[in-house]
Order: sequence, then C-alpha cells, then structure tokens
Amino acid sequence: MSKARAGNFFEDFSAGEVILHGLPRTLTSSDQTLYTALYGSRFTLQQSEDFAQRVGYPKAPLDDLLVFHMVFGKTVNDISLNAIANLGYADCHFLRPVYAGDTLIAESRIIGLKENSSGKSGTVHVRSKGINQKGETVLEFVRWVMVRKREERASCQSVEPPRLPEAVDAESLGGACPPLAIAAWNWTEAGATHRLGDYHAGERIDHIDGMTVEEAEHMMAARLYHNNARVHFNAWQERAGRFGKRIVYGGHAMSMARALTHNGLANAFHVAAINGGRHVAPLFAGDTVFAWSEILETRELPGRSDVGGLRILTRATRDQPAGEFPRLAAKENVPGVILELDYWALMPI
Amino acid sequence: MSKARAGNFFEDFSAGEVILHGLPRTLTSSDQTLYTALYGSRFTLQQSEDFAQRVGYPKAPLDDLLVFHMVFGKTVNDISLNAIANLGYADCHFLRPVYAGDTLIAESRIIGLKENSSGKSGTVHVRSKGINQKGETVLEFVRWVMVRKREERASCQSVEPPRLPEAVDAESLGGACPPLAIAAWNWTEAGATHRLGDYHAGERIDHIDGMTVEEAEHMMAARLYHNNARVHFNAWQERAGRFGKRIVYGGHAMSMARALTHNGLANAFHVAAINGGRHVAPLFAGDTVFAWSEILETRELPGRSDVGGLRILTRATRDQPAGEFPRLAAKENVPGVILELDYWALMPI
Amino acid sequence: MSKARAGNFFEDFSAGEVILHGLPRTLTSSDQTLYTALYGSRFTLQQSEDFAQRVGYPKAPLDDLLVFHMVFGKTVNDISLNAIANLGYADCHFLRPVYAGDTLIAESRIIGLKENSSGKSGTVHVRSKGINQKGETVLEFVRWVMVRKREERASCQSVEPPRLPEAVDAESLGGACPPLAIAAWNWTEAGATHRLGDYHAGERIDHIDGMTVEEAEHMMAARLYHNNARVHFNAWQERAGRFGKRIVYGGHAMSMARALTHNGLANAFHVAAINGGRHVAPLFAGDTVFAWSEILETRELPGRSDVGGLRILTRATRDQPAGEFPRLAAKENVPGVILELDYWALMPI
Repeated sequence: MSKARAGNFFEDFSAGEVILHGLPRTLTSSDQTLYTALYGSRFTLQQSEDFAQRVGYPKAPLDDLLVFHMVFGKTVNDISLNAIANLGYADCHFLRPVYAGDTLIAESRIIGLKENSSGKSGTVHVRSKGINQKGETVLEFVRWVMVRKREERASCQSVEPPRLPEAVDAESLGGACPPLAIAAWNWTEAGATHRLGDYHAGERIDHIDGMTVEEAEHMMAARLYHNNARVHFNAWQERAGRFGKRIVYGGHAMSMARALTHNGLANAFHVAAINGGRHVAPLFAGDTVFAWSEILETRELPGRSDVGGLRILTRATRDQPAGEFPRLAAKENVPGVILELDYWALMPI
Repeated sequence: MSKARAGNFFEDFSAGEVILHGLPRTLTSSDQTLYTALYGSRFTLQQSEDFAQRVGYPKAPLDDLLVFHMVFGKTVNDISLNAIANLGYADCHFLRPVYAGDTLIAESRIIGLKENSSGKSGTVHVRSKGINQKGETVLEFVRWVMVRKREERASCQSVEPPRLPEAVDAESLGGACPPLAIAAWNWTEAGATHRLGDYHAGERIDHIDGMTVEEAEHMMAARLYHNNARVHFNAWQERAGRFGKRIVYGGHAMSMARALTHNGLANAFHVAAINGGRHVAPLFAGDTVFAWSEILETRELPGRSDVGGLRILTRATRDQPAGEFPRLAAKENVPGVILELDYWALMPI
Repeated sequence: MSKARAGNFFEDFSAGEVILHGLPRTLTSSDQTLYTALYGSRFTLQQSEDFAQRVGYPKAPLDDLLVFHMVFGKTVNDISLNAIANLGYADCHFLRPVYAGDTLIAESRIIGLKENSSGKSGTVHVRSKGINQKGETVLEFVRWVMVRKREERASCQSVEPPRLPEAVDAESLGGACPPLAIAAWNWTEAGATHRLGDYHAGERIDHIDGMTVEEAEHMMAARLYHNNARVHFNAWQERAGRFGKRIVYGGHAMSMARALTHNGLANAFHVAAINGGRHVAPLFAGDTVFAWSEILETRELPGRSDVGGLRILTRATRDQPAGEFPRLAAKENVPGVILELDYWALMPI
C-alpha cells in the first residue's frame, strides 16, 4: 500500500475517536507580518509591541484568527482533505494568548457523524483544540464539515452530535486576555475612541471598504496554515470540478472580514469566542469582499472592570457593497452574502 | 452616526491642523524580508547583518523606502482615503536609522489647501513625520495630494503652502547614517566597486532590467504598510472607475525603481533625502517597470570623510525599456515614464 | 562605459576562474516562514523549534532547498543572467546546517566550457559553494547552464568539465545533521510512522496532490533568493520571447515537488545531497505541479545508528497527475514531466 495518504473518508471516522494531528509549528513574528500583509489587519494590540506592553501584555499577542487558522490547518490533513464543504463552526473559545515563539499542535475528537441521504457523503462533527508547547489548550472549537465517502456502499456510524450552546457563555470569556490598564490605552493609536458603552444592541455598521482576493494570496495563506485541502490549490483538477475553479479557504474570508471591521470596531481588540460561523456561499479569486456588522449584545464580564464583551454578527459579501446591510445568503456563484460570523470581541469598558 | 469612517474630504481640512495618526507598528526583520521578496532589494547594507556591523552600524538598518512607506501608510487613513491622485513629495529627510524592533507612529500638519477650479476637489499639502518609540523623528516629508470634496458647495479654506527648497540642502544629509569604516566596506559583497568619485553630473545609467508587477504583490505591500487607500484594493468598484482597474500604490513604483537601480548604483546604500517625487502616470498590475538614472550632482558632506552625497534623478517607465533614456511623461494608460524621483543617496567616498 | 552590467556572456568565462559573488544575506526565521507560505513545506524538523530541539538540533534548521536557492541565487548575477536554460545540477552536498541568523555568501569556480555548434551559445559548468559568516562551507554543487554569446564571432575557451560521480557517495552524507535522539522522534508530529527500513528500492509513491503556481509566487520566491535572471520577471520582454511568457525559476519547481513529497516521505526530513537534477521542460504560471517518487536505494551511514540515507528520484509534472508514474519528459509547452531530481534524503533508521 502506498505511503501517501488520500486522507480520511466519511466511513473512516468513529464517534469518540481522538486524533492527535501532526505538523506542529513554531509561530514567529513573521507569521504575524505575513498575516498583516495578506489581510491588512490593523488592530493595534497585535501590531505594536509598545502599545501591547503599555496596556499589560508581556508582548504583542498574535492575531486571534491567525491562531485559529493555524490550529484549523493542522486538522485538515486528517479531517477534511476530502471535504466537500465546511458547513460551520461553533462553541469556539480562545483560552490563552499566543505569542511569537509558541509552538502549536492540534487534537480533535469526533463528536457526531451523520450520513447524507444520497449515500455519497456525510457530515462529520469534530471538537478540535490547539495546544502550546507547555501543554496548555489555547483554543477549542467545534466544526462540522461534509466529507465524501470512499465507497457509496460502505457502512457508516451514525451518532447524533451533542447540542451546542447558541452562544458561548459571556461568563467564560477573557481567558486569553490578561488584566489591562485601560488608563494606558491610547485611543488615537488604536484608531478610534469608541468604548464598549458606545455600542448598543441592534446597531448596524457598514465597514465600507472592499478588498479583492487573488489566487496567490489565498494559497499563500492556506500554506502558511498547513491547510492542504485540495480544492484551494489544484486549478487543473478544479477546472473539472463543481465551480470550475479553486475555492478560497473559508477562513480567508473570515480574516478579510475581520480586517475590514477595523473601520467601525477599532477597539474590538480581541476575538474571545466564536459563537457560530457559517460559510453560506463560496469565495473565489477575483471577488471583492465587503462586510457589515450588527451588534447583538454588550456584556460585563465577572470580576473585570477593564474590558467587556461585545457580541457581533459580521456578514461578509462578495461583489456587493454592504451599505444596504444585505442579510440574504447568496446563491452560489452570484454576488451576495458569503459568511455569517457571530462572535464575542473584547473591548475596553 | 456610523462608527465607520468614510475618511476626510477636502473641506474637512484646516491649515495648521496637526493630526496624530493611529496604527503604530513594530517593524521586524520580517518586514524587511517581505520587502525584499516584493521588490528584490539587493543593497547589501540592509541585507547582511555581517556587512552592516563591519562598517559601523549596530545592526542592519531597514530599507529607507520601507520606512517611508510605513510612515506614509499611517497617514493615509486621515489624509488620502479619498484621494484622486498623489501629486508629489518633497523636502523629505531621513533623520535616523530604523531597525527591526522599532515602533513607528506618524503625525501630520496641514500646510496648504487649494481648491480646484472645478469645485469638486482640492490639493492638500501636508508635512508628515515618522516618530519612533523613543519619541525621535526618524523621517519627515511634505506631500501634496488631490482630494475629493464631499459636497461641491462646501466652502473651503485656501492657504498657500510654504515654498519648498528645490532640493534638500546637502549640508543636512547623513543623520540616519553613523560614521562608517569604509576600509571595512567589502566592494565585492556590495556588488560593484564604484565610489562617489566615479560618478559625474550628467552621467546617465540605464538600469536595464524590467520587472512586472502583479495584483497580489502591490496589495500585499500596501497592506503591509497599513496603506488602505481604496483604489488599490477594490477591483469591483474600480471596474467602474477612471481606469477600469485597481491602481498600484505610487510608492510601490518607487521601491521597484530603487531596487532596479542596484544595477549601476550598488554602493548608493542609503536614501538620505528625497528632493522631489512625482507620479506622472499611473501603474497597473501586469505592467513591466524599467528605470534609468541621471546623476545630478555629487557633494562632500561637512565633517565627513567616509561618505558623500550623490544626487540622482531616477525615472521609471512602464512597458518601455529605459535604454533610450525616455524623459517625456507618459499619457495615462500608455507606455512611458510613470515616476520621476530626485533624491540624495549616500555613497562611500 | 555604463556602470550597469548586462551580465556575463559565454565568451566572458575562463576555465579555472574563481568568482566571489556579491550580495551576502542574513537569513532569518521569516525566510523560512515565507518559504512555507510559498510551497507549503511541512517537514516538521524545519517547522517546530520544539521538535528540533527534542531530537538534538540546537534549533530548527532552515529548509535545505531554501538554503540551496539562497546560494544559487547569489551566483545568478555573475553566471546566468544571460542563461537560455539551466540544464542540470549534480554533486551537491549539504555540509552544515543553516540556521536563522546565519549570513551566507557564495563563490563559484568555472570548471568546464563547451561552445554549441550554432556558435550562438555555450554550456558553462560551474562548481559553486555557499559559505557562512564563520567561513564554513555549508553547501557545494555543480551546475551546467546554457549561456548566450554576446557576439557570434567571439572566440571561446573549450574545456572538458571533470567527470562527476553518478551519485554522491553515501559515505559522505550527514555533515549537516547532528547526532539525533531518535527515541525522541515524535512520529505523530512528523506526520507518518515510516522509517528508513519501511522503504525498498523500486518502490513508487504517487504524492497525489497538485499545486498550481502563480506569477506573484514565483517572482516573490526568486527575489527572496536574489535570483535576478531576466526570464522570470519581465513579462513585457518575454511576450516576444521563446514561450511568450515568463518562465518559472527551475528551483521553484524543485521546492514545490519537495513539499508535495511530504505525503509519502514525511520522515525524509533532510536533503543531504543532490545526485542529479534536470529541468526537462519549463514551468509557467497557471500550471499545476504534481510529483511522484521512486526509491532508488537505502543505505546505512558509517558510524551512525540514528539515521540512514534514502536515495529518491522525484519526478515533477505539470498539468498531469502522477498516479500513472509518467517517466517520459514532456515536450516543451505540453503537459508532462518537467523535473527529475535524484537525491539523498536522511531518515530515521
């Protein structure tokens, strides 16, 4: 049997199975720099050592979604090499800050399996975590992904996934954020003066700017994350595939959207949890991404007078400006909403 | 009112106003590495720690134009988000070396305002500076940029900008260059043996090589600099715009040209001042950039026997080799000269 | 005479001549990060400081082919600026590990010259080496390259190149690999459990995955390496050239292939020697690269019980999956084999 792996298919997974993923990676400041170059991330805490240390971090932490992608990327080779589509994420907790110099590995547990009626694929539910060189869990999340079967007739497990909370409990937020000296928070440097109390539930913010994605960019990003899912890289094969072209890694759209939200949410410095994320339509090179956000809730955090939680639903679109706050998901291959991301960000009170 | 900003329009500026820009950034060696990958910068001082330390730097400084773009980039969000065109730069002084680990912020003063006769836009003259984490000014320059008005009927200030020197005074050069041990200058490593005395006013150098620019490259560069001017990123919008496509950040052309000049100016190791720079035509992805230089002047610097000033006028073209030393500016959208950059470089005597 | 150099032509070389190349470069972790982003390199030793230190390296070494490209790149300006084609490599030894922080220079000796019957070009044989800041040779290799003549009538030296060994002697392998504690080798982290003894001569491995190359990627890579050969960068000129478009640096294909081989050769952690490499057809942006490997030989190394040598012949194709193990070289401009790379990798016993 060949030593090269074609990846797991739906019938290869068993509920309860724990997979320790390979490919640990030591993150450095150059991962952050490349991340900045790929998305235009401008949240000051992650960009300035000076700012970070003044407010109480030992040094500037890496962008939260960079950490998410690094952990996600490690799971791909075992979980989703034969994925048809990433359907969603939920119950995602950022538990500890990650700094340049940290080495991350990833581990996943299969928590649900549901064959599709077609008999050709099924949905795998998996809880994954990222672990640093000290053995500390830095990130944990659930995702569900549609995976091909190798053989239509293969018999498969069917296990109902556990019910997930509609949103991460605000009481649990903040593990990745040390106590901050908000008096030292330089609002000019951060890019805006809005604090948590300036936002209210129901508020809608058009982030205005649009950013076009290129093939070289999303492939460089996915490789940086060790995400080797085939649909992102192989134009030759995808020419005969479902869309006739490579599909951009869904997380790339998340990071593009997060970067765009700086214009309106400049002090939402830390993604503390992802309540739910759905890629409602694919993104392709050449498309221009826009974003708008709806404020769902603001929350104080127990025992903290420095920062609070801002629950945000950011929608990203392709080839459609967000000024009219589009809510309807796009049909595939037409302009419209591509991503709905419901998350908790932390913000100075 | 939305918390997302559409940026300042011409009528929003007041002469004398000082704007402290946000988004400080800690530069690292990976900014230099990415800069090298984007332009092919080969000036040895910035590429080799070993070379830099042998000649007297505490460590390799970052490329001067990388520093320029970082400072420029920070000003965009406040000054030129609604720019129609960057018209020019002048009186630009590199005052202190910038090293990996330094954190830069930027500050600007509005020094001139002139409405256009159309009533739809005006020219903003601004003096900007970059400041490091110790509060030292590392770079200072004037630029003028045509900015849209929000409302045609809005009344605007009209203030004559101060007269700028035709060139930076050679006596003032060299602040960003410590005393150098030229005996330790390795000419082989530097790539050529030409010293200041080998150049003469009127000499013309075709830098020969051509380099094509790609969308992914100029967008990664601009994002690295936190330059978020809309025309560089939004293909969807620009399809309906003036040129039907994204426009490359003018500074990208400057860095491409500077990198090309290594072939003929290998020992012009440091850009000490920019006397004047003009983007005479736009640059687009797919275009190939060439460059040629005219030596304007050589100058000894007061109190220095290590290095002197070489005043250079570099012209960059698009889709036109520079062997015939083209001087005429291109019309927009046709091949020809796109950039005229008059600057002082330092070179061993 | 202009100070810009058009590069050496065939008649400019003399046998025995030693050329000390310019442009030393200090490599950093961001070179490795960018390399990972460009190729998706996943060999764990180079990706994880933690893994590297556990098995006995002082820190994670840089990818071997990254080092190869850096040294190769420095030779281009003197050797192959006017190359028509890189014909091959051989007798390539990786002699010492290279780490972030090391500064490399390069030196070449002309060892053979053979004019082509056309009188328009000739083949230059050159032995190049890379030297670190301590004066230690880290890498040595022979390459032969077809170089244009400046003038057809110019007289040229003709010197038979020395005979090269068909393969690097296995006895000499391992200089760049310290003694390793294989008990600390984490097979899960490395991505597979196969040791040297699990491979056998004649075994063929389809590495399955395909990866498309973009213009921005190969140009960024070549610039990172200071490889300024004209055919890679100048779309304007190449439109009128042999293929009508830019040609991807051959080493880019080597690194793409090496990265793809991780799927099947995950523990072949170190390229210790290149026995022979041939670019049998060009690669262009937009092409998708696949790879397959044939195991030629496994060898114990004298005095080492930690690692042994695995001799591998990796063939890369463009726009042709490798599942049927294609051996025939492509004609230019059609799908098929583009690269044959015969090398020794080290692998835990």
